Amino acid sequence: MITVEQADRIILTELRDYGTELVPFEEALGRVLAQNIVADRDLPPFNRATMDGIAIGFEAFSNGLRTFEIEGTQAAGDTPLDIQNGTECIEIMTGAALSSTVDTVIRYEDVEIAGGKAVVTVNSISKGQNIHLKGKDKKQDDVVASAGQKVTPAIVGLAASVGALELLVKKLPKVLIISSGDELVDVSDTPADYQIRRSNSYTVKAALSRIGLQADILHVPDNPVIIKQQLLYSLQSYDVLLLSGGVSMGKFDYIPKALAELEVTQLFHKVQQRPGKPFWFGTHADGALVFAFPGNPVATFMCMRRYFLPWLNAVLGLPNVKSFYAILSQDISFLQPLTYFLQVKLSFSEDGRMLAIPLEGNGSGDFANLADTDAFMELPAEKNNFKAGEVFRVWQF
Amino acid sequence: MITVEQADRIILTELRDYGTELVPFEEALGRVLAQNIVADRDLPPFNRATMDGIAIGFEAFSNGLRTFEIEGTQAAGDTPLDIQNGTECIEIMTGAALSSTVDTVIRYEDVEIAGGKAVVTVNSISKGQNIHLKGKDKKQDDVVASAGQKVTPAIVGLAASVGALELLVKKLPKVLIISSGDELVDVSDTPADYQIRRSNSYTVKAALSRIGLQADILHVPDNPVIIKQQLLYSLQSYDVLLLSGGVSMGKFDYIPKALAELEVTQLFHKVQQRPGKPFWFGTHADGALVFAFPGNPVATFMCMRRYFLPWLNAVLGLPNVKSFYAILSQDISFLQPLTYFLQVKLSFSEDGRMLAIPLEGNGSGDFANLADTDAFMELPAEKNNFKAGEVFRVWQF
Repeated sequence: MITVEQADRIILTELRDYGTELVPFEEALGRVLAQNIVADRDLPPFNRATMDGIAIGFEAFSNGLRTFEIEGTQAAGDTPLDIQNGTECIEIMTGAALSSTVDTVIRYEDVEIAGGKAVVTVNSISKGQNIHLKGKDKKQDDVVASAGQKVTPAIVGLAASVGALELLVKKLPKVLIISSGDELVDVSDTPADYQIRRSNSYTVKAALSRIGLQADILHVPDNPVIIKQQLLYSLQSYDVLLLSGGVSMGKFDYIPKALAELEVTQLFHKVQQRPGKPFWFGTHADGALVFAFPGNPVATFMCMRRYFLPWLNAVLGLPNVKSFYAILSQDISFLQPLTYFLQVKLSFSEDGRMLAIPLEGNGSGDFANLADTDAFMELPAEKNNFKAGEVFRVWQF
Repeated sequence: MITVEQADRIILTELRDYGTELVPFEEALGRVLAQNIVADRDLPPFNRATMDGIAIGFEAFSNGLRTFEIEGTQAAGDTPLDIQNGTECIEIMTGAALSSTVDTVIRYEDVEIAGGKAVVTVNSISKGQNIHLKGKDKKQDDVVASAGQKVTPAIVGLAASVGALELLVKKLPKVLIISSGDELVDVSDTPADYQIRRSNSYTVKAALSRIGLQADILHVPDNPVIIKQQLLYSLQSYDVLLLSGGVSMGKFDYIPKALAELEVTQLFHKVQQRPGKPFWFGTHADGALVFAFPGNPVATFMCMRRYFLPWLNAVLGLPNVKSFYAILSQDISFLQPLTYFLQVKLSFSEDGRMLAIPLEGNGSGDFANLADTDAFMELPAEKNNFKAGEVFRVWQF
């Protein structure tokens, strides 16, 4: 049986390159850029008025002039208006592009306008005020977002502003979620006394959809012939299989045998952890990966969060799995030599610390608890007693 | 001019009830429950084997019996098999429902099986071991997720497990994002020297889509007749209008006038903050809300995050806007009497504290910076100098 760290290392060695694809910028949210987004011109592209008021040449003002002839009015989007000499000004609106004949904007609050003239009512202004200078944020050809970045709402907006209609992003692996076990019936069925409804696949599918990955779902019965056929098809059609259930030592757990026959090499089986000890991981000769999680709902969910998502991040080249640490709020004991994934509720205190409040309920296997918690806290196998105030890694979900 | 806190209070007074709707449980992720989800039977619904092995009556073992006749083999999903007396056992698989004639499971590792008999090779077992007892997690009719909770992947799975095919959730308001200004051209256009491309609407739309709200987009030209027509239609067809641009003091800002003519009451205009000072907020006689954000991309984005999203949370009855606090990593000065929304990158230190690292770039208006930051830190107007180590509220985006 291997440790959590060893399992981590083995999984993170099995990275694949799934290539890239072009998507409309509006649909790129959450994807990982495979290209730089570059400014097609300076940002801002012109000297831009940031207030409504009048635009003047500063020199005339510094020579004592306070009354300016209004040469014209220029809205945002209008062709820039010139002044002919320093005694003139332009009435200008926020967002308008300034002509090279003006260099300073005085806001309406500081001028009085009457009879085609603007009188400045303040004595102190500074040259260049209320102007967002051409190229101040970015120069033409500057990178505004880099390959490897995750596309955020701000990056969608940046892509729009530089006219990047399509973005090259990393392709996501094709993922199939497989449940197994004849005790599982459809959600719409009424189970017999000894049956339960399928739920794991929906939990995993929902968790993946939240990060933009649309996975398919398949249920296989406890029948060795059908299992082998279905797994063969799945290994040929998908990049990753996420199985839940069917990997224990039971007589009717046909999956490990079928995987072996289909040239899936087992890289490990069983990890020193609770929940999720029977976790099985292997790779197919043609490249597909098989994460076979134990059927217990909390175990499936935890293994998906703790192992599959970090693998996916690594595949997409995201710099590092974001590591979160939180402070345990109360003493906890766990006496077995296993890494314990404790269900916790996170809370941000007003002093900037992240607290993890355990909600043990009926122990690690209580799926109902997951509704009221938002992270697993990873308590290392080397210790048995964990004290309030100690800091450990947490995996938010 | 009002303070950030006053703006907050005014907005959070204008809550509306948008009713409820039924959605398939698979599509409920991120929605807010308007019903409790209740266990349709005990969870687990039967005494469930948690290991593969043999099931026995503990009394026979405690009387010294170590060899048990195998009466039959029962897989998960099979009808429970009974033993006829204490000398018998059932070979049992993980997930199987135990008959009432057995009360203890001994895993395969602790038995030797040969010739139709199982010999227990350990001397110490405990009654009830390796069984997840019926009703241990939840009893029939217990609430497994409550009205007012946001649907997480775990709650999707819980809904599946109790057969809740449809969930009653709170309706989301219908939101229209309106941009204005003749300086703005289509993303697919090549702007003239004095024009820029529309981007704000895409940023806001992307941010809302991330929380499951699909907003529509509209652009209005700087034409008072068209603006009034479009706003009239929008106020009748949508619950919330999010405008960007067109609310400054300029001659061509027709929007405030049109809103007034259409019976939208201004509740405030201008907030003591940077960016976003010209923020305008009002309500229509028939109930629609108008958030009119300044056109600067950072201002629009900040106001959407700081004011609209908390309003939406309050409307949906989410307990409290989750408040995050972080520790400023370096000294910052901001000399104006305004609340300053500083762009920061958040980082979780290994001691469980959340650090906020400022990325000022070219100041509060630099949109390109948003690609490299992940929160606004709210630095209060009452102070001008903010020291490394001090803690302030942050708004993650």
